[in-house]
Amino acid sequence: MQDVKELREKAPSLSNPEEKAKLVRKWCLVSTTEAGSGHPTSCLSAADITTVLFDRYFTYDVNNPLNLLNDHFVLSKGHAAPLLYTLFGMAGAYPLEELKTLRKFGSRFEGHPVPKYKYADAATGSLGQGLSVGAGLALVAKREGYESKTYVLTGDGELAEGQIWEAANFAAHEKLDNLVAILDINRLGQSQETMFGHHIDEYARKFEAFDFEVIEIDGNNYEEINQALQAVQKPSGKPFAIIAKTFKGHGISFLENKDGWHGKALKKEELEKALKELAPINDDLRFQLKKPTQTKSPQQASNKAVTDLSFEQGKEYATREVFGDVLAKLGERNKEIYALDGDVMNSTFTQTFKKDHADRFVECYIAEQNMVSVAAGLSRMGKVPFVATFAAFLTRAADQIRMARVSEANIKFVGSHVGVSIGEDGPSQMGLEDISLFGTLPDAVVLQPCDALSTAQLISQMIAYAGFAYMRTLRPKTPLIYKNEDSFVIGGSKVLRQSGNDMLTVAATGITVFEALKAADELQKENISIRVVDCYSIHPIDATTLKKCLGETKQKILITVEDHFEHGGMGDFATAALSGQQGQVIKMAVQTISQSGTMDELLNDAGIDAEHIVAKVKAVPEVKK
Amino acid sequence: MQDVKELREKAPSLSNPEEKAKLVRKWCLVSTTEAGSGHPTSCLSAADITTVLFDRYFTYDVNNPLNLLNDHFVLSKGHAAPLLYTLFGMAGAYPLEELKTLRKFGSRFEGHPVPKYKYADAATGSLGQGLSVGAGLALVAKREGYESKTYVLTGDGELAEGQIWEAANFAAHEKLDNLVAILDINRLGQSQETMFGHHIDEYARKFEAFDFEVIEIDGNNYEEINQALQAVQKPSGKPFAIIAKTFKGHGISFLENKDGWHGKALKKEELEKALKELAPINDDLRFQLKKPTQTKSPQQASNKAVTDLSFEQGKEYATREVFGDVLAKLGERNKEIYALDGDVMNSTFTQTFKKDHADRFVECYIAEQNMVSVAAGLSRMGKVPFVATFAAFLTRAADQIRMARVSEANIKFVGSHVGVSIGEDGPSQMGLEDISLFGTLPDAVVLQPCDALSTAQLISQMIAYAGFAYMRTLRPKTPLIYKNEDSFVIGGSKVLRQSGNDMLTVAATGITVFEALKAADELQKENISIRVVDCYSIHPIDATTLKKCLGETKQKILITVEDHFEHGGMGDFATAALSGQQGQVIKMAVQTISQSGTMDELLNDAGIDAEHIVAKVKAVPEVKK
Repeated sequence: MQDVKELREKAPSLSNPEEKAKLVRKWCLVSTTEAGSGHPTSCLSAADITTVLFDRYFTYDVNNPLNLLNDHFVLSKGHAAPLLYTLFGMAGAYPLEELKTLRKFGSRFEGHPVPKYKYADAATGSLGQGLSVGAGLALVAKREGYESKTYVLTGDGELAEGQIWEAANFAAHEKLDNLVAILDINRLGQSQETMFGHHIDEYARKFEAFDFEVIEIDGNNYEEINQALQAVQKPSGKPFAIIAKTFKGHGISFLENKDGWHGKALKKEELEKALKELAPINDDLRFQLKKPTQTKSPQQASNKAVTDLSFEQGKEYATREVFGDVLAKLGERNKEIYALDGDVMNSTFTQTFKKDHADRFVECYIAEQNMVSVAAGLSRMGKVPFVATFAAFLTRAADQIRMARVSEANIKFVGSHVGVSIGEDGPSQMGLEDISLFGTLPDAVVLQPCDALSTAQLISQMIAYAGFAYMRTLRPKTPLIYKNEDSFVIGGSKVLRQSGNDMLTVAATGITVFEALKAADELQKENISIRVVDCYSIHPIDATTLKKCLGETKQKILITVEDHFEHGGMGDFATAALSGQQGQVIKMAVQTISQSGTMDELLNDAGIDAEHIVAKVKAVPEVKK
Repeated sequence: MQDVKELREKAPSLSNPEEKAKLVRKWCLVSTTEAGSGHPTSCLSAADITTVLFDRYFTYDVNNPLNLLNDHFVLSKGHAAPLLYTLFGMAGAYPLEELKTLRKFGSRFEGHPVPKYKYADAATGSLGQGLSVGAGLALVAKREGYESKTYVLTGDGELAEGQIWEAANFAAHEKLDNLVAILDINRLGQSQETMFGHHIDEYARKFEAFDFEVIEIDGNNYEEINQALQAVQKPSGKPFAIIAKTFKGHGISFLENKDGWHGKALKKEELEKALKELAPINDDLRFQLKKPTQTKSPQQASNKAVTDLSFEQGKEYATREVFGDVLAKLGERNKEIYALDGDVMNSTFTQTFKKDHADRFVECYIAEQNMVSVAAGLSRMGKVPFVATFAAFLTRAADQIRMARVSEANIKFVGSHVGVSIGEDGPSQMGLEDISLFGTLPDAVVLQPCDALSTAQLISQMIAYAGFAYMRTLRPKTPLIYKNEDSFVIGGSKVLRQSGNDMLTVAATGITVFEALKAADELQKENISIRVVDCYSIHPIDATTLKKCLGETKQKILITVEDHFEHGGMGDFATAALSGQQGQVIKMAVQTISQSGTMDELLNDAGIDAEHIVAKVKAVPEVKK
């Protein structure tokens, strides 16, 4: 642990930081009172440390928030948004008066930071995620040799979130000594004192044990703040944690260290009283941020498809393995692609990418939450991160996925081992909620190719799509059913069986495509023709084709079959696409918690194999006539 | 840190533990080879320590796994299931020969433990959850004064999961000195060496910093194991961590500490070679477990409804506040009810329960993953845990919720602050995926009452329902619209507007009920009658009533309106319920990421307010004729 008093290098002298901090405090209070809600006291505890940071150390071009050489300031305690807005306002990014629109409809100053506020590196507000985002930013800077620093301001309550310790492990393992966690230990959570109150030694011991360079300070003492921030300018091989003992509401006597003030704006008369305490305030004070000496912008990623992969007709491939091969190939041309994995690279096959592009592979170990938020940081730096693990374990990061979507991050997810078709490992390993998880998020693309060729093309499509895209890959090998001249697009589908005599349509996806084809063959023996569609694009689903099928088949019935739980699955997308059409959608999907067994046993047990499809088709009264 | 050599108390002497461990090893190998898959080497590293545990220390009645006075053994590293199955087999729970059904369809010995294997306290297999489950078990034992111990066997790879550190904080804060984490540090993860390899000091430092009593041992040395297990018998005020340096595949020369053996069963000839190394093996050896001296069974919970709560007609209540009041009342009669919260008890209103029943309130701080898995432990002990936080933050525990469902845990979830109706805080705080999250899980009940009376009754219904049940509660206050004589049941609904002249039906839930009623009033001014249904039970949804409405209205149209994203929401349940009926479902739901603003602005912006319902109704061509 560093003793700030012993810091050898003398920090630069500060000129009247308390005057600037007063102005910061004023606007945190004024904006929240104007809004009628918000968290002013959570801003006030960190006002001093951030004032010194912005006044003396923070290097940033306010005219170019995406300059890759900027420092970063991630507000992990997102409810202190008015502080963030005030800091950049005082850095000249916009007039402070605009802060009076805080929390109002249409304002860029929302209750918690979102991407329309372009100075935020990520949306925050779900606690405990900022250190991971910061680690992602710092990782790119480190690997690409930028001199920037990433500062992450966390609260103390959020240090109870496990993701903090995932991020701490990750940052130390990656030796991110350009990452500075500033812990605002203001003692009070939302409902009561935090677990450790003002015992900052508890945090110090933990961060030291997680291999951080720890500096303990009085976070409302400018000299100690200054010395700590000076100390972190020198890389030491370890990430830094400045553990700042602060007081919630500091600077205003009737707010400071008082219960019952979390998330409450001051009433007008209380505000007046507070401003009197701060008076006199010099409204002309501003931060003069240092600018990076150069500008470096995120690269426009190349979106060329892979054309030099060939697959043999009749041979079987696991789509997860094809994904790894394709990503490695694409990575040759597109230097922005990163792959992240959670100790399952030999299952997801990101190991193929790692082999060729170790400098753009990120091993996140078994810590999926951190992995997703690191990817959000990578995305902000213009990278195209592919996040891969078992589909079931992407669920571990559901909240980080949600927040990355709010952040408008450009992340590609690949979940392997989907559905009961994985076999013997049993339900804990089966991805059966993943279509629902990603499908619920607005504009998230969900894909599930069933063979090698469609997988290869759709990986390219995912990269070309700017935004969230998720691909399900299969554990077992499946036969190649497409040809090189076939093309696959987001929102597309393939009609695999078709005649002028089709009774109805079966829409399948992934492993169930093969069951549907088997069923069609079986039924054909009894002269029952059905249409079979491969809905490799689950969201958006190919409404045009499905409508056409419904219209052209005799019974106006679409049967959907998927290796996923029923609610929130592909069947619901198909149903929505056909809303208002004459006809009926019948959903076949997994209805109960599955078990161990062979793939065939489990597909049968779940009622989604060829046998059940045949039975379902024959159960349509008109089919047997 | 304890030095095992200095342990004052002499551990009891062991008699030939290596002979029993050989038999344990044999069955881990035989069963996985028989299955053709599995993780034998992950079993072997922990075979010695668990053999000593079961042989000398573990107190358990194999004829009554639910005896509350039993010790607990939670296998957090669920992929070592064959070890678990072998241990209880050697304890006489079933013939060892049955282990040859491992991973076969219908066997109770699945790839990872599930509830049909009744000796598992929870389903495991998604890593990093066992310590939290164990903390839940230990918490009940502690609070109710049982002398039992809870042992949790974790792997090393899973220690990267943040939830481990949430659990560690929680266990130390609750002073669970009846909880023993046994860390099997076998160095090798799935795809490569773990982050810290065999540097067990890294783990020791971390667990010490998290206030555990740490004991470092050679985990394949019987004397050190014995001394450590002896040491943990004496409560010390802190939870214990036995950090065992082990070797993956220990005991078989060609497996031990070798790469490439994770998750691989031995081939027949390899098995023969391994068994030769172990020979001679005494197949008659068994564990003689000590039994608890008494039997205590989980209570049958009382399910009486609250009858002594009264609400005033015309007054407004926030359903979240009503939930707190009702739970506190119910807690008087039903002593099995627990409430768990994540530092938002003043928002969810579990604070009302805490006030009356502090001994059954569990403050989990901002660590939702641990909270849910602790609740799974409580459920195993016969408790009825209510887990409450913002609906948005239940997403943080999506994987723990998934696994608790696989565990068949009896947990009640209450998510407050749902939808865009929360207003100014913005999208990070809005629960808009929660119906999808819970609705996707088989048999999970999803409820959303819109007023005080329906809330009160449905809380009782949730308790009466044995299994997963989720309730959405609202941030804003809403008027009382029901009367004391009204009754509300899972699977029910209420028709709020009805005439013989209805054009179509609007099905709403929660806050949108009031928008639908406003819309109906507006339309009535133009002599357009619509039917309005309150779908307070989202899953199961009231199919009978919805079909009746569809059949009785002129246009055979059902419009669903909900403050939730479209996919996976109430509309999809309604659509599924009406599958095969003549008519059309039109879904109105949130389509994009929302923002800050007033409730009315945001309901309007999302297109789910009265104005948009009126417009949607009028857009039906036949309505205006």
